[in-house]
Amino acid sequence: MQNFEFENPTKIIFGKGCIAKIGEEVARFGDRVMVVYGRGSIKKNGIYDQVMESLQETGRTIVEFGGVKSNPVLSHALMGIDCARTEAVDVILAVGGGSVIDTAKTIAVGACTTLDTDMWDFFMRRQPITVALPIVTVVTISASASEMNPAAVMTKENEAQKFSIRSPHIQPKTSILDPTVLFSLSPAYSAYSAVDVITHMLEGYFNNEEPNSSLQDRLVEGLIDTVMESTRVILSDPADYNARANMMWGAVLAFNGLTTAGMGPISLPAHMIEHSLSAIYDVAHGAGLSIVLPGWMRYTALKTPAKFARLAREIFSVQGDDELQVALDGIECLKTWFSTIGSPISLEEVGIPKRDINSIAQNAHALAQVWGLNDYTVDVIARILTLCVE
Amino acid sequence: MQNFEFENPTKIIFGKGCIAKIGEEVARFGDRVMVVYGRGSIKKNGIYDQVMESLQETGRTIVEFGGVKSNPVLSHALMGIDCARTEAVDVILAVGGGSVIDTAKTIAVGACTTLDTDMWDFFMRRQPITVALPIVTVVTISASASEMNPAAVMTKENEAQKFSIRSPHIQPKTSILDPTVLFSLSPAYSAYSAVDVITHMLEGYFNNEEPNSSLQDRLVEGLIDTVMESTRVILSDPADYNARANMMWGAVLAFNGLTTAGMGPISLPAHMIEHSLSAIYDVAHGAGLSIVLPGWMRYTALKTPAKFARLAREIFSVQGDDELQVALDGIECLKTWFSTIGSPISLEEVGIPKRDINSIAQNAHALAQVWGLNDYTVDVIARILTLCVE
Repeated sequence: MQNFEFENPTKIIFGKGCIAKIGEEVARFGDRVMVVYGRGSIKKNGIYDQVMESLQETGRTIVEFGGVKSNPVLSHALMGIDCARTEAVDVILAVGGGSVIDTAKTIAVGACTTLDTDMWDFFMRRQPITVALPIVTVVTISASASEMNPAAVMTKENEAQKFSIRSPHIQPKTSILDPTVLFSLSPAYSAYSAVDVITHMLEGYFNNEEPNSSLQDRLVEGLIDTVMESTRVILSDPADYNARANMMWGAVLAFNGLTTAGMGPISLPAHMIEHSLSAIYDVAHGAGLSIVLPGWMRYTALKTPAKFARLAREIFSVQGDDELQVALDGIECLKTWFSTIGSPISLEEVGIPKRDINSIAQNAHALAQVWGLNDYTVDVIARILTLCVE
Repeated sequence: MQNFEFENPTKIIFGKGCIAKIGEEVARFGDRVMVVYGRGSIKKNGIYDQVMESLQETGRTIVEFGGVKSNPVLSHALMGIDCARTEAVDVILAVGGGSVIDTAKTIAVGACTTLDTDMWDFFMRRQPITVALPIVTVVTISASASEMNPAAVMTKENEAQKFSIRSPHIQPKTSILDPTVLFSLSPAYSAYSAVDVITHMLEGYFNNEEPNSSLQDRLVEGLIDTVMESTRVILSDPADYNARANMMWGAVLAFNGLTTAGMGPISLPAHMIEHSLSAIYDVAHGAGLSIVLPGWMRYTALKTPAKFARLAREIFSVQGDDELQVALDGIECLKTWFSTIGSPISLEEVGIPKRDINSIAQNAHALAQVWGLNDYTVDVIARILTLCVE
């Protein structure tokens, strides 16, 4: 096990009916609350009303900031920052999934900066984050684990860059997770969420830094089994409480630092490459991952098949003695599973032509440099993308 | 999944060489630090010197309070409280295992009370804990997870009561875990630690409140596999870093709230009964648990065998269709394993005569009442203990 620090102070309030506690949680951090949300689905499914009622009961002053799109964009977050400044808000409440929470985190940082700050400097890692407004969340889509981690991802549209920030200052103070809010999530987004959650764990699982990781491996394998089992149930019965609850809590544990503590510095190559698909083509993040992850796995398994073979045996019961063959069979099983739940497994399926591979690779390479993934040259990324064509 | 709240803000600093960071961590909470430790083993194995060097480098004023025994006693903690008051300390640093950390927690509470407070009122749950000095720990024995949880156990000698307190105020701020400090831990205490860790998880695993717990079950099963695997390695090579590291981190995850979040209110019947063995006979806690747990499991499996059968199949690969038989076979496998690692599995082995069962049951029943375990009458506890005789 590698040396590590683990600190995750977010308070989780989990379960049916717990959105009613949001007013009380927000009140711990001030009077003026900015409610950040998406494009209106929370107004249809009743979550908006539940949140507002609880905030009003505790007498909060509410500033609304809706309109966050999936693959959230910097220009919109900048408007939010202006609004947070003008309204002098004390606390940011995100009501949504990863895109909304990440926008809220960006606003929380921006509201504490001077007017001449270039927000993108934080994402380019040119400037450290030293302060942010407190953030509280009500989760409506479970995948990113942004509700219990210190990261946020944002796209700068004009340069098609999807980059990230990371700081303890943007770790949410409290996150409220009510699995019943997921009942209305579409089959497609339910599937994409499962892909995202599994990918979060596999990026750590396949990390090369730590050869002795039986503790973490078993945590990941147990959670993947649970996510796969729950997804099968959800796709046939979207209102199965326990399956939705397993997904909601499993998504958090998958990417809140638990499964990677002790694994050494973790790189996220599949996420890195996928970010380019989202940034350029606005592909749903989970859909992009189910295309990129198997390609990345095939590329990497050819060099170091052992861990890929372990996954194949543990999750898909693949048998055999040839490590590489077992590994490749396992990757095919994973692709098949992604396809079964309705997530795309090729660039072709989402209409991205093979001829674009080089420009995608160029785009992803810019992020590889920011993240310090020096092995990922344009050529390497292009080779991986070639394995994702069909 | 049941509704739950999860909040665990302790900062963990894990790995070889990290004791050197203790001075810096303590300094976050004040100048005057009270160092609580046991009966001198830390002076033999060099940990004391490492801690003092780091505290002195950061210019802390040090107040020493040694002499904590395993199964720590209230009378000694009261001396610590006097000392903490007299010396007006700002922060308590525990350097030890569960007994030392729990003494430090008791002192941290006591130092903030008025002179006329009866400390035992907190343990009898007659008075809530509303404030405590900050606590920081350097762990030297991994089992209790007290380094990352809000509980402490203490024995009142004259009444032979081993009771507990629980409050977010006594959750350690920072805990430093260096697996190399475990290299000198004896085979017996290495085994007892493993028993304690496994029991912590099984008390939640067999909790009756939550029938749909596949996520938590898999976490527990994965951690038990890791603890058993690591213990086997440790007993043949006490200085195997990775095995000690797995035990050290596994012990924390086993009882920091992770495996029980969503499982409903957890009762700890095996711990409850064992507390009487420790309180009356000063049996090592882990040794007492390896006697009591299988007896409790046999008693309970007869009524509700399904989960016990699951454990038998998942951990010991027991086969068969008769749920009860599979469950009982699994319990025998666990007993055999406890015995193999050198932990006692009968009252007889530790010299407790059968004729004492009724008085032990009376003692345990007092705790059952404080904990609200109303099903555990004196008769029920005596019947369980009868299954622990030989």
